[in-house]
Amino acid sequence: MGALRLPSLAFLRSPSTATRPWTHFSSSSILSSHFPLRLRSIRRGCLASSSGGVSTQSLTKEEEQQQQAAASRKSAQMNQEGAVTPRSLDFNAWYLDVIASAELADYGPVRGTMVIRPYGYAIWEAIQVGTFAPPPSRLVGTVLLVGNTLREENLKLSFVLCALVYPQRLGNRLMENTWLVVLMFIPYSFIEKEASHVEGFSPELALVTIGGGKELEEKLVVRPTSETIVNHMFTQWIHSYRDLPLMINQWANVTRWEMRTKPFIRTLEFLWQEGHTAHATAEEAEKEALQMIDLYEKFAYDVAAIPVITGRKSKVETFAGASRTYTIEAMMGDRKALQAGTSHNLGQNFSRAFGTQFTDENGQRQLVWQTSWAISTRFIGGIIMTHGDDAGLMLPPRIAPIQVVIVPIWKTADDKTGVLDAVASIDQVLKTAGIKVKVDDSEQRTPGWKFNFWEMKFKGVPLRIEVGPRDVSNRTVVISRRDVPGKQGKEFGISMEPHVLESHVKRRLDDIQTSLLERATLFRDGNIVDVSSYEELKAAISEGKWARGPWSASDAEELKVKEETGATIRCFPFEQPEGQKKCLMTGKLADEVAIFAKSY
Amino acid sequence: MGALRLPSLAFLRSPSTATRPWTHFSSSSILSSHFPLRLRSIRRGCLASSSGGVSTQSLTKEEEQQQQAAASRKSAQMNQEGAVTPRSLDFNAWYLDVIASAELADYGPVRGTMVIRPYGYAIWEAIQVGTFAPPPSRLVGTVLLVGNTLREENLKLSFVLCALVYPQRLGNRLMENTWLVVLMFIPYSFIEKEASHVEGFSPELALVTIGGGKELEEKLVVRPTSETIVNHMFTQWIHSYRDLPLMINQWANVTRWEMRTKPFIRTLEFLWQEGHTAHATAEEAEKEALQMIDLYEKFAYDVAAIPVITGRKSKVETFAGASRTYTIEAMMGDRKALQAGTSHNLGQNFSRAFGTQFTDENGQRQLVWQTSWAISTRFIGGIIMTHGDDAGLMLPPRIAPIQVVIVPIWKTADDKTGVLDAVASIDQVLKTAGIKVKVDDSEQRTPGWKFNFWEMKFKGVPLRIEVGPRDVSNRTVVISRRDVPGKQGKEFGISMEPHVLESHVKRRLDDIQTSLLERATLFRDGNIVDVSSYEELKAAISEGKWARGPWSASDAEELKVKEETGATIRCFPFEQPEGQKKCLMTGKLADEVAIFAKSY
Repeated sequence: MGALRLPSLAFLRSPSTATRPWTHFSSSSILSSHFPLRLRSIRRGCLASSSGGVSTQSLTKEEEQQQQAAASRKSAQMNQEGAVTPRSLDFNAWYLDVIASAELADYGPVRGTMVIRPYGYAIWEAIQVGTFAPPPSRLVGTVLLVGNTLREENLKLSFVLCALVYPQRLGNRLMENTWLVVLMFIPYSFIEKEASHVEGFSPELALVTIGGGKELEEKLVVRPTSETIVNHMFTQWIHSYRDLPLMINQWANVTRWEMRTKPFIRTLEFLWQEGHTAHATAEEAEKEALQMIDLYEKFAYDVAAIPVITGRKSKVETFAGASRTYTIEAMMGDRKALQAGTSHNLGQNFSRAFGTQFTDENGQRQLVWQTSWAISTRFIGGIIMTHGDDAGLMLPPRIAPIQVVIVPIWKTADDKTGVLDAVASIDQVLKTAGIKVKVDDSEQRTPGWKFNFWEMKFKGVPLRIEVGPRDVSNRTVVISRRDVPGKQGKEFGISMEPHVLESHVKRRLDDIQTSLLERATLFRDGNIVDVSSYEELKAAISEGKWARGPWSASDAEELKVKEETGATIRCFPFEQPEGQKKCLMTGKLADEVAIFAKSY
Repeated sequence: MGALRLPSLAFLRSPSTATRPWTHFSSSSILSSHFPLRLRSIRRGCLASSSGGVSTQSLTKEEEQQQQAAASRKSAQMNQEGAVTPRSLDFNAWYLDVIASAELADYGPVRGTMVIRPYGYAIWEAIQVGTFAPPPSRLVGTVLLVGNTLREENLKLSFVLCALVYPQRLGNRLMENTWLVVLMFIPYSFIEKEASHVEGFSPELALVTIGGGKELEEKLVVRPTSETIVNHMFTQWIHSYRDLPLMINQWANVTRWEMRTKPFIRTLEFLWQEGHTAHATAEEAEKEALQMIDLYEKFAYDVAAIPVITGRKSKVETFAGASRTYTIEAMMGDRKALQAGTSHNLGQNFSRAFGTQFTDENGQRQLVWQTSWAISTRFIGGIIMTHGDDAGLMLPPRIAPIQVVIVPIWKTADDKTGVLDAVASIDQVLKTAGIKVKVDDSEQRTPGWKFNFWEMKFKGVPLRIEVGPRDVSNRTVVISRRDVPGKQGKEFGISMEPHVLESHVKRRLDDIQTSLLERATLFRDGNIVDVSSYEELKAAISEGKWARGPWSASDAEELKVKEETGATIRCFPFEQPEGQKKCLMTGKLADEVAIFAKSY
């Protein structure tokens, strides 16, 4: 019996563990011959998504076979020439191509749904671990920073460090803060209890009306977010001030019946982390909401290398049911904004609706003050669209499921033994050092093909190590960076000596992490224009940039901007320029600048 | 601002990390005063569950306050006397009391749903890790066996060991085998494609008929299991024999509209792990199905200490859509059987329905052969009902979220410093050794109360360490086992010397693990009766026992047994007696014995 092939990540296992080594090769060859098909299918799926209703995106058997045959004819050149549409040519097509070629996700049969594939889910797992781990670099220096990207190391680290630094900020992977609200079904009446909540969410609800063959007495909402059900439980669990503050957190799936969908960015069903807290005072709730957006910001900068801008949402853009919404806004490669995470101060809106009360120190019944906060699989889309380039996916080392790919190069059988021995020992050294390594020693592909496959077009691996016969005699390796193309990103003659190689690789991964953040920051800052009038704002937006200017105008005027330019207030950033400001729209005094941009 | 209290698991944090240490005490006091209330509410919820329709189980404010006042009056004695109904008195009430008092789960507002609370979810996480980790004891000796129960250690271990032993058996926590079919919604037409599948599942389906405010063209099934959607995706991903074998796995939530529900055992929504494979030959699929049930069996024995009986389901009891179903059957404390995990050989049933074909080595199109296999949160119910005793929860060390609780004992301030210093150092030693330790040094409760709280009534912690002033001067500790009550389970004068204490604790945890399995095995074997006639079978069943006897009768006769005795064939066990056998029902030749029992 052949070893079981795990879709996509089968590549990661070394052939030596398989009883039929060529099974591994098969994946590559299949991959190449089906790329064009997959690409077409995923793009078509996206276009089809605006048609509404349920539609299957699968091809008929005939269509499929035809496309397959055509695809096979082209596959050889496709692989070398690149199946991914250049980003500079068509951003949207590029994005969908990257998702298809890296096998991050595929369309589901229901309009607007996706199936997250192993490589995509590995990124989600890295986010799960990374979100709740404080940046270790700040605590334990640069070396551990790389170790932090390894999942199991990460768990350990974040466990230890969170316990020290953020005792109440552990993800649900970590036992002491584990929580799961299993409940996916919410009685419809719950949703109706908070007026603005129902107004905001009712257009997007999926409703279960039939259960066990019978019409239900009360229809059930498939959770779009869990404030209502959480409040129902809080009302049973909170009795006195001694029960406060209270925090729960879950990693779960949610459903929002969106009309315009895009893989990772907006799908009918998606995965997220949602936290909910209850407090005795308004001040505590506000502090908590700020603390969480701060944590998301740290994660974005330190782990995902995304230089988000953190701030407060305008009233118009505030979460349905919140008193105040804080957000981290990221600039994508096409300069559109992506809301990458939010933290809401819910005030007493839900506690009032659900009667979530506690008895205070004086024996008085009081409503609790609450917060909620979330990040979702949308973040994966943000990572792709922030760091990818014309060639394809580029992953920051601290998020990459594979940080280093090792490609052995040989011609003769004699060379082979020496090269593979050297590669095995390097593999061992790096793995022991906590680095995620993949050796691609399959014999069916040229090294050039492998370089492309792992780094450029497909998997976005940050670092490549080549080992050839000459390297073996010199006891050296060649190292190439994904983020610096060509000779410039290549280093020759790096010693194989374990200690030297390990620290070199860690340093390079660290460099890449830093460099990606710097690059994205430069890009962001080069595309934000300070404006002092509506005309300037319109000009900036029409150039595809973000406009930053003083704002104290009305909600109606904010909506007018949206209607006329397509841009919305992304946030009032926490970082504000000093001095007096005049509203760009009304000329009246303004306390703050706002950032306007088109967004996903 | 007070430190955030995490529900239930707030206890686990030591007060020293909180700015308002008494918040911790609050949890305990609240817990005690609300137990009776909680217990009533959870039992009522269960009874209410058969009424159908949506009903909220929360009390009105008035009811709640009344109950609360009554509860507070009783709380002091309740705590010492035990709020849990003795198991021997009323098994069902005991089960619900344990779930409530250990805060494993609570009812959701929708009939038949539950909210898994942190301590319950921590057990689920231990299952997630434990399932896919091969028993390390067999590989690395006894010492690591204990380390294996620590989550982060476990991840590391299972990562390393799985890579060696079960390269294709990693859970989705482990990057190389990560997978997630996000899709929760299945087009209704998919369910209809496989005839016996739709027949089996249609009475239990939850249907989404409205999305985004509009009636859907095709109603969507909230996944009860994912064979159909997986086959849809497989049909797109599998093209040639080179793509086979293929495996995917996900940890997800599923929905089955059950009429009679019970927390963990049968709920409308539950969590599970489901794996799906596709193969080129019938032999490979059969081998795979057997391999998986074998893995589940190992997990049950080695991690959960549940001596399951493994075998094949009868045709009547086979999974809807499977050719053959393998099962692990566990005997609960009330001697009812619990189907704790299943592995299905699906043959070509689904591939025929979905056209999941591959091109074989001769260029011929062939249908794939498939398997699927799952375990669910039901396993948590199985652990409770296997090991718990009159006093409450008892967790096997390898599943326990807390393995050792340390209770310091002092009277004077002078003593306190010395005792707490010693406790801190023991805590450090054991944690470093990979043991999950909780120090309860709160000052608001007596040591006796703490003993009860952590071990007996509530948390089911396997081992307790006491440290008093005399122990400090002697440099010793007192160790008590949860599974051996009274003096017999107590050891005095165990040295505090790190190395000695560590190995002693590890040995004891190991002993408890072994002892729980032995005890459950004895209980099981004492309650299985070998029968050779229907009369004997009826007698055994009416005594509440399992009946094992030769069986080659018809499906109709099997159904007659069910109707007349309430017992079903749990399985044809793999372990069969030798020699000629005659069917207990017909007297005709029988190849195998079957096990009959009443079941959950």
